Amino acid sequence: MNGRSKQLRTDAKRTAILVGAADAFRRLGARRAGMREIAEALGLSAGNLYYYFRNKDELVYYCQDRTLDALLDVARTARAQYGSRGQLGSLIEGHLRVLLGEQASGVLHLEFDDLPAPLLKKVLVKRDRYERLVRGLIADGQKRGEVRPGDPKLDAFVLLGALNWTARWFRPGGAWTAENVARHHRERLLDGLLAPQPWSRS
Amino acid sequence: MNGRSKQLRTDAKRTAILVGAADAFRRLGARRAGMREIAEALGLSAGNLYYYFRNKDELVYYCQDRTLDALLDVARTARAQYGSRGQLGSLIEGHLRVLLGEQASGVLHLEFDDLPAPLLKKVLVKRDRYERLVRGLIADGQKRGEVRPGDPKLDAFVLLGALNWTARWFRPGGAWTAENVARHHRERLLDGLLAPQPWSRS
Repeated sequence: MNGRSKQLRTDAKRTAILVGAADAFRRLGARRAGMREIAEALGLSAGNLYYYFRNKDELVYYCQDRTLDALLDVARTARAQYGSRGQLGSLIEGHLRVLLGEQASGVLHLEFDDLPAPLLKKVLVKRDRYERLVRGLIADGQKRGEVRPGDPKLDAFVLLGALNWTARWFRPGGAWTAENVARHHRERLLDGLLAPQPWSRS
Repeated sequence: MNGRSKQLRTDAKRTAILVGAADAFRRLGARRAGMREIAEALGLSAGNLYYYFRNKDELVYYCQDRTLDALLDVARTARAQYGSRGQLGSLIEGHLRVLLGEQASGVLHLEFDDLPAPLLKKVLVKRDRYERLVRGLIADGQKRGEVRPGDPKLDAFVLLGALNWTARWFRPGGAWTAENVARHHRERLLDGLLAPQPWSRS
């Protein structure tokens, strides 16, 4: 096996491990699921798991980093859409597909408080880059009059809060698909919970 | 000192302890802040702290329980308002006042994953009662045509996700007051991020 195909196989294996880890995290809680529980969920020996990740911190960091790369792609795709409805709608659906989609590793995405400082710092730098892109989409829409005027930071908190919260309650194979949730959240965040009333323009 | 005034003094002291604990949690992270760090933040001896709470679980549980009592009051007050705009607006502002207001113990509110099972169960029962009230307000508004049609559970997740997320980023004495955030979130969640456009009714 040459170096490149070996790397591809390693990446595929690491991805499969993340899916199993997310499952163990959901069942046991992020703190109670250790390397042993993750190996069990995957039917791997602990030794085999340690071949791919030296410890739980490295596993969580790898997941964060990959998730943030995917979110940065989502933000770039969103920016290429037309108008704020298209851009923010694309962002909302893309963000939820990353968090809740097939690999459903979203549950790992929020558990970085316990990472050791050097890894945490790398995650936060990348997360800040994503959040700046989100705020930029909002601020641009405000300049065009398509987004309500206000502080783009607070708007981004509303948006990202509702989106990231899904990782806490969403269960793959449960009552809703990731697509159901994405469509619903898109509509509610862009247009609000209240129905437009004939006698008042908000 | 009679029994009743002693109880009042104990409650006041426990409240003061929660404020200090929330501060330690914000600085150190919920998991790294132990009883010793909380005592230090309050200028108490550890022994004095243990007089009021036998351990960290009891402290976190007491905070959760008191927060949920306050939220149940918020939901009852909201239900007494007129129309969905009044009811959900009152709920949003009340929820954020509880989480971010003077006692600012919101940071403790979300950290119940580590509670021992019997305490966790009590917290979840009360939390479910609150969430049912929130979904009820949404469903009633849908019947009156004041809230957009859809699954009230998903709507409640959008609402509570954005609201609870504030406990992760809000800093007392920072750029915004709890009132700023409450007004902003009320407006955005009820009416959406997008400005109404003259050429389209959503």
